[in-house]
Amino acid sequence: MILQPVVNIAEICARKGVQQVVLSPGSRCAPLTIAFARHPDLTVRTVSDERAAAFIALGMALTTGKATVLVCTSGTAALNYAPAIAEAYFQQVPLLVLTADRPPEWIDQMDGQTIRQQQVFGQHVKNSFTFPVDLSHPDAVWHTERLVSEALNEAAAFPAGPVHVNVPLREPFYPAPGEELQFDANVKVIEEQQNTYSITDSQANQWLQEVRQYKRVLIVVGQDAYQEELLQQLGSFMHATGAVVVGDSIANVHQLPQAVRYHDAILACPEEEKMMALQPELLLTFGKSIISKSLKLYLRQYKPKAHWHIQAAGAVADTFQVLTRIIRSAPTAFFEGLSEAAGATTLHVSAYQTCWAAKEEQAAAFLRNYTAEAEYSELAVLAQVLHQLPQPGNLHLANSMAVRYANILGLKKEQKLFVYANRGTSGIDGSTSTSVGCALTSPYLTTLITGDLAFFYDRNGLWHNYLPQNLRIILLNNHAGGIFRLIDGPRQQPELEPFFETHQALNGENTARDFNLAYTACHSLEELQVALKTFFTEEAGAGILEIFTDSKQNQASFARYKQQLLKSGI
Amino acid sequence: MILQPVVNIAEICARKGVQQVVLSPGSRCAPLTIAFARHPDLTVRTVSDERAAAFIALGMALTTGKATVLVCTSGTAALNYAPAIAEAYFQQVPLLVLTADRPPEWIDQMDGQTIRQQQVFGQHVKNSFTFPVDLSHPDAVWHTERLVSEALNEAAAFPAGPVHVNVPLREPFYPAPGEELQFDANVKVIEEQQNTYSITDSQANQWLQEVRQYKRVLIVVGQDAYQEELLQQLGSFMHATGAVVVGDSIANVHQLPQAVRYHDAILACPEEEKMMALQPELLLTFGKSIISKSLKLYLRQYKPKAHWHIQAAGAVADTFQVLTRIIRSAPTAFFEGLSEAAGATTLHVSAYQTCWAAKEEQAAAFLRNYTAEAEYSELAVLAQVLHQLPQPGNLHLANSMAVRYANILGLKKEQKLFVYANRGTSGIDGSTSTSVGCALTSPYLTTLITGDLAFFYDRNGLWHNYLPQNLRIILLNNHAGGIFRLIDGPRQQPELEPFFETHQALNGENTARDFNLAYTACHSLEELQVALKTFFTEEAGAGILEIFTDSKQNQASFARYKQQLLKSGI
Repeated sequence: MILQPVVNIAEICARKGVQQVVLSPGSRCAPLTIAFARHPDLTVRTVSDERAAAFIALGMALTTGKATVLVCTSGTAALNYAPAIAEAYFQQVPLLVLTADRPPEWIDQMDGQTIRQQQVFGQHVKNSFTFPVDLSHPDAVWHTERLVSEALNEAAAFPAGPVHVNVPLREPFYPAPGEELQFDANVKVIEEQQNTYSITDSQANQWLQEVRQYKRVLIVVGQDAYQEELLQQLGSFMHATGAVVVGDSIANVHQLPQAVRYHDAILACPEEEKMMALQPELLLTFGKSIISKSLKLYLRQYKPKAHWHIQAAGAVADTFQVLTRIIRSAPTAFFEGLSEAAGATTLHVSAYQTCWAAKEEQAAAFLRNYTAEAEYSELAVLAQVLHQLPQPGNLHLANSMAVRYANILGLKKEQKLFVYANRGTSGIDGSTSTSVGCALTSPYLTTLITGDLAFFYDRNGLWHNYLPQNLRIILLNNHAGGIFRLIDGPRQQPELEPFFETHQALNGENTARDFNLAYTACHSLEELQVALKTFFTEEAGAGILEIFTDSKQNQASFARYKQQLLKSGI
Repeated sequence: MILQPVVNIAEICARKGVQQVVLSPGSRCAPLTIAFARHPDLTVRTVSDERAAAFIALGMALTTGKATVLVCTSGTAALNYAPAIAEAYFQQVPLLVLTADRPPEWIDQMDGQTIRQQQVFGQHVKNSFTFPVDLSHPDAVWHTERLVSEALNEAAAFPAGPVHVNVPLREPFYPAPGEELQFDANVKVIEEQQNTYSITDSQANQWLQEVRQYKRVLIVVGQDAYQEELLQQLGSFMHATGAVVVGDSIANVHQLPQAVRYHDAILACPEEEKMMALQPELLLTFGKSIISKSLKLYLRQYKPKAHWHIQAAGAVADTFQVLTRIIRSAPTAFFEGLSEAAGATTLHVSAYQTCWAAKEEQAAAFLRNYTAEAEYSELAVLAQVLHQLPQPGNLHLANSMAVRYANILGLKKEQKLFVYANRGTSGIDGSTSTSVGCALTSPYLTTLITGDLAFFYDRNGLWHNYLPQNLRIILLNNHAGGIFRLIDGPRQQPELEPFFETHQALNGENTARDFNLAYTACHSLEELQVALKTFFTEEAGAGILEIFTDSKQNQASFARYKQQLLKSGI
């Protein structure tokens, strides 16, 4: 017999909109496993490696926008969740993490699979609850129901994030054979109607007036999900104020026609005069992290007079060291409010916009020419791949070089792509799993672009019985952590090869065999062109396209890219 | 230029006896990487997957008895250490965990690879230090040196365990090209001379008198390393007091000729009368966890009048729910002291010893006959493997069924084997890596016996450039978490196959290809006998012997084992 309040966890989750559940097998968690597996409204999958399971759940929450539930057994299972939970915390992705535990009297008694699970995720969850173990008092039952609602509400509240519920369970763990679980029709649920974080008309008028005191307004968008309405309001705001919008590929603003996409190239220029022409007076930012190192360094050097960050709630980072004002509003509401306050008095195109647009055109031309002529290297290869991605589609960019190369190259405004990357913590540890979770919950073809270290690190993301046919893996294999050869510091050390690059011998062929994935290897641009003709077709099914390059050639090629960029005079 | 106090970390470690260092590549940790890599007295290896790296370090510390140093970069790298660190904490294995971090001003600023690293291992380290970031004041330098000594002293002090030092580092991370590091000849080191936790003569006399009031004294040994002197003193104590010694395979007392090895079979008997004949009046225990479930249940049901646990320091578990006295002594000192106090007045063999010895003989005969005749199944297969292990050798038993089967079967007193298993937390997550760490630091052939789930979970334990030729992997592949079919609860649920057993399709052949391991597949006892003739030879090199069995047949076979055991009348 399983206790009814434990069964009710699944029911409350379903009532509150949870759809996806990722379990990992175990005995202590059996009551939770059975309750979730038998619930008619939940999609439940099981993944043995908890590290991968948690990243898969993260991918699902990213594409669905809803909290995914994770369930694991007691012991180190929970600790294997930790990397994905930290990523979810900083990327602000809702997860409900249920960890089965021994009851308190058995902690530290040398029993198997017993660790100290309370608060085990430390400062990387929004909250951590303990499910009551003694359920005989009615108040304890009220506590269990309230707690599950509270946890889900907190996971979803902006900024979203992971919430932990530790669930100590005593035996018995299993219903009698044939015993049916009853999902409680009267279970108590607490709905939370979220605030919209909108602004008042007077705020809009006041802020618009202030914005109009600046001739050069730059909007830098950090990592965020694609939002059609936001793009519309950003467009209106640009018209109304002459502002410029800059966004990394992970900002998902590349579909905004006027957005600057090639800032990484533009801002690599060492000429002070040219850089001063782009310097903002007012910097507006929203969203999460920034990839482009040249953008970060640029804004720290060419400081704006004021920097407003628009964020509805939560702690705000001072990414460029120039933050002067925090505006507690949803970005869409802010731009809509100010655009409406501006009314029909649409500005001409501002001089600042013209200046950036000219640079953007130059950079686009440079990149087009450079990649058309570049020798076989990761940058040249990725240019081909990026521009042939099927649409609509999801693109997951793994850390560390894949996401950087893609950001340099940029996406075109016509490309209906939704871009994901684990930039909450920027680890190399869960990109494959995250893209699997994304593919499992999206109707679109989902492409992962990854280096070899990130790919083999997270190989267990493919180790389960749900490999989605809409998954495509572009594996850039240079047999090493190639990034270290691209940085001056480690490149000059005798430790470069053994201790930084860390040569690794694997290629993806055996992995493809292991997981029944289609497999194609490429060693030249010609082979790549042939392979890409079929790789993205629906019939091709889930597969790996492995592109072999040489780490030293990539280094030489990237150095040439930088040289030619400087010479280009952008 | 790297700051001298950072360079000195490596020097202090070397002076304090550290020999093995496991790095994972990263940029933030480059100063530590370079300092350790260039130190002439340290063996430094690099492993990309931090989860595997930490378990490899654990395996090294287990075989060498000395703290292994771990170094990783900032971000989720540290979180991937967490499972091995929890295992080290509960298995009481010394590790010094150095995590590079951003300086405090950059925490929570949306920069890459930045999490909240202070106290990140929660309650699973003995202590957590923060290395000073501003080193201009001489007291700060004193602080850095003191702190490294303190951390290593604490890691080694009984009960040993992991200690964390978080090291925030500002750029530059690299010395100028060609710049030589100087290891400081005058660096300050604090030695700690450990207590021997011995007992006084009057204590020995008093406790001996008390022990002699009991006719039936049972010594149960928990997980511990092999210690020749301990076995001698245990033998003397048995002579002096008529006590019986029982030890799981992980207790490493099987080489004590009189020890009981087959208690798991003996204590599975449901007949009260027979069980009462074995019931102790005084239970003496030392060491860590117990595997045998029938032993645990037996002692909880057939309670002794008194239970003394002998443990030099640290928290004591009440494993059998009958603990009445904690004796703060090293076990060897305790048994030596009481044996000496007993002097030449050696007892005859006690009736209690005779009773257990008869059972042991019966159980040995039963197991010999059963496994000689048993059909092809995991239990029958392991009986073959265990008794052909080369000596001297290391045996690592993975969780979850491998370690249980091996414990049922027992090792013979002639087998010079050192047995390891991650029974601190009993996770399935790091056994391969731990055995690799063991093999890398031991002159002996090291055999890992593992199930398929544990093996593929931790496949990255093989993903580095140091695969030791003295490693042998016995992979019991039933394509599932077979343990769930052996337990009544899950076996009777409709969720058994999809959510408990979790069928997995992999076999080890592609893995062997990936890592250049010799590979042999077995599908019958006959094939196994042929394979075992060469598998353990030195010339065979590192390899996988994969033994395929069927989960349902294993279940049937294990049920027959239990039936026949009951029928045997032991």
